[in-house]
Amino acid sequence: MPQISQKGQMMPASPIRKLVPYAEEAKRKGHKVYHLNIGQPDIPTPEVALDAVKNLTEKVIEYSHSAGNESYRKGLAKYYQGVNIDVDHTEMLITTGGSEAITFAFLSTLNPGDEVIIPEPFYANYNGFAVSAGVVVKPITSTIESDFALPAIEEFEKLITSKTKGIVICNPNNPTGYLYSEAELQQLKTLIEKYDLYLFSDEVYREFCYDGNTHFSAMHLKGIEQNVIMLDSVSKRYSMCGVRVGAMVTKNKDVINAAMKFAQARLCPPSFGQWASEAALETGNEYFDEVYNEYIERRNFMVDELNKMEGVYCPKPKGAFYTVVKLPVDDSDKFAQWILSEFDHNKQTVMVAPASGFYATPGAGKNEVRIAYVLNKEDLANAMETLEAALKAYPGRTI
Amino acid sequence: MPQISQKGQMMPASPIRKLVPYAEEAKRKGHKVYHLNIGQPDIPTPEVALDAVKNLTEKVIEYSHSAGNESYRKGLAKYYQGVNIDVDHTEMLITTGGSEAITFAFLSTLNPGDEVIIPEPFYANYNGFAVSAGVVVKPITSTIESDFALPAIEEFEKLITSKTKGIVICNPNNPTGYLYSEAELQQLKTLIEKYDLYLFSDEVYREFCYDGNTHFSAMHLKGIEQNVIMLDSVSKRYSMCGVRVGAMVTKNKDVINAAMKFAQARLCPPSFGQWASEAALETGNEYFDEVYNEYIERRNFMVDELNKMEGVYCPKPKGAFYTVVKLPVDDSDKFAQWILSEFDHNKQTVMVAPASGFYATPGAGKNEVRIAYVLNKEDLANAMETLEAALKAYPGRTI
Repeated sequence: MPQISQKGQMMPASPIRKLVPYAEEAKRKGHKVYHLNIGQPDIPTPEVALDAVKNLTEKVIEYSHSAGNESYRKGLAKYYQGVNIDVDHTEMLITTGGSEAITFAFLSTLNPGDEVIIPEPFYANYNGFAVSAGVVVKPITSTIESDFALPAIEEFEKLITSKTKGIVICNPNNPTGYLYSEAELQQLKTLIEKYDLYLFSDEVYREFCYDGNTHFSAMHLKGIEQNVIMLDSVSKRYSMCGVRVGAMVTKNKDVINAAMKFAQARLCPPSFGQWASEAALETGNEYFDEVYNEYIERRNFMVDELNKMEGVYCPKPKGAFYTVVKLPVDDSDKFAQWILSEFDHNKQTVMVAPASGFYATPGAGKNEVRIAYVLNKEDLANAMETLEAALKAYPGRTI
Repeated sequence: MPQISQKGQMMPASPIRKLVPYAEEAKRKGHKVYHLNIGQPDIPTPEVALDAVKNLTEKVIEYSHSAGNESYRKGLAKYYQGVNIDVDHTEMLITTGGSEAITFAFLSTLNPGDEVIIPEPFYANYNGFAVSAGVVVKPITSTIESDFALPAIEEFEKLITSKTKGIVICNPNNPTGYLYSEAELQQLKTLIEKYDLYLFSDEVYREFCYDGNTHFSAMHLKGIEQNVIMLDSVSKRYSMCGVRVGAMVTKNKDVINAAMKFAQARLCPPSFGQWASEAALETGNEYFDEVYNEYIERRNFMVDELNKMEGVYCPKPKGAFYTVVKLPVDDSDKFAQWILSEFDHNKQTVMVAPASGFYATPGAGKNEVRIAYVLNKEDLANAMETLEAALKAYPGRTI
């Protein structure tokens, strides 16, 4: 029997995957499981996007352009110009989700063995894309004590070697909900310029900025235009994660040209998803206002509830729809399993994502979990009540 | 300005890409360009597939399972069982097109520097997937003189080194239209067994077998079940290239488990495409009969027309909808450019794919082109007439 590749062996499994059988078992026992572990919003997809697909008149679903339909790219360029990002349709490739945007960016710019620095906790799938490309992730720890602000630039500098080729940020951040300020991005710029690094900026949560804060994009940084690659997706913006449409955006033509060759090899991004995404550009402001109000209410409720619980600390996230919260438990992996398999509160339980999966440093995040506030308020209230009861009952509690 | 990766530099550009500006210029001059260069069929997508998408009732387009919707995998397993391929829904991953199936297969089984042997001429994008995975392609030449039959097993054996980890076949073949016989596959099996290699079998043209020939799948080979990885796609079967849905199928659980980790990192295949693909499983036989009759007529007409032309040789392909044809020209790259840019026949011209792009051996295929018979008969007749006139007028003709 032939062997599995080294990458196949090294590839991290989804940090949630091991909990899935416990969640299924809980459901079999008749327990209601509140999924606080996933980034799948319950918000409806804009009707204008769904209608575009429902009303299609095409008789043959053909390949599209490898860079994505030109009409969609032109529309998307207008959307970016509307948020003060100065790009045209030749400065982007439409990708199969944000996932492929990151893959193309890594493959086009990084060699096997090259290093990228990523503030941790970070989106766990960055590990997977790094393994695929043979790239090494060097984590730099941001702490819950500072609400997950950008680590000091001197700390980044300590990690820089001759192999360092880039920095990856996610802004607003998954999993922490932290929104980087313009000042923080200007600090990063200094570093990017000094060492001529790439700045890979994942901005898929751009629309989700709260409390009057506006989003400052890496594309807004002056003077490092050739170094910045923005990664984007329609998944969260229009609550249509399943359409698999994203974009890799950069002013650097060499990167576009290299990525285009990877794009041609895989032929094209999905046609249905592109039609939905192009139509979604017409989504009215009232949709975003409604979504914004919904998330603000959920967040405020959830943060208040969490911080009322004994020994719990939850920063108030200014973006996205996640928070990383500190729990009074010995080991959040064990706690997450226990709450599904050995606990229920009035036949209810919750699934949370242990934060260990979002840290690359072994042992980090041991008493933290990521919570996504993608449930309606009633469910969220029940989930919070259940979590509080669980924390009181958990044998490994630390208070 | 930071550098492009080595892979980004090595990545081959599409062999057609350099011809595109000439085709666009021809169109600007008012010339009708017949596209014999692409594998985009003009056959309608089954209505049952389109209707599934048009009639969708979902309000949120959510992530699907990373392995693909279970209902679709179960339906697809039934389809395979119907063509005597004994697999269940746990022995496959639904992928974003056949492209991602190959990528997952390579990443899961091959290390950078590993070698795969591929009979040339071969589907040019295999080069791209190999570069992405850091894998080295070792071509073995099949010749037009033998109608592109499988090269002798001894010739394969000469190429085997300690780095050889697999053989890639495409059956029926793109670009040659050759259909491998059971006897040829049994010969390959001997080799696969002897050296414990992987057999990557791209079978996306399974439905396109002519003249009473039936398809013998690599999955039908007994005793090497752990070595075979089948790559599939709905693109050609249902003429819906744009939906981007394929599958990686294998009895080897280790490969499924490794590939699943890559699948989880990219989250899921496209939802709309999966719904269309699941519905397409209900496509009636009359659809396939009609498509079959259409292609048979086109093929017979085209092969006859080509072989009537002086100095032209076209094998009679038994599968797919391509043929590689020998032309009496000095250099088919130059010819393909010339016919677009300096020739017209009653304001008509044709675009063909120079075969050099399908060979890895430098200089091979210099007087061959790939022709796809994906045009209706009237257009095909005009294209043939134009090609014949061009061959008479071309300054670099060799007869």
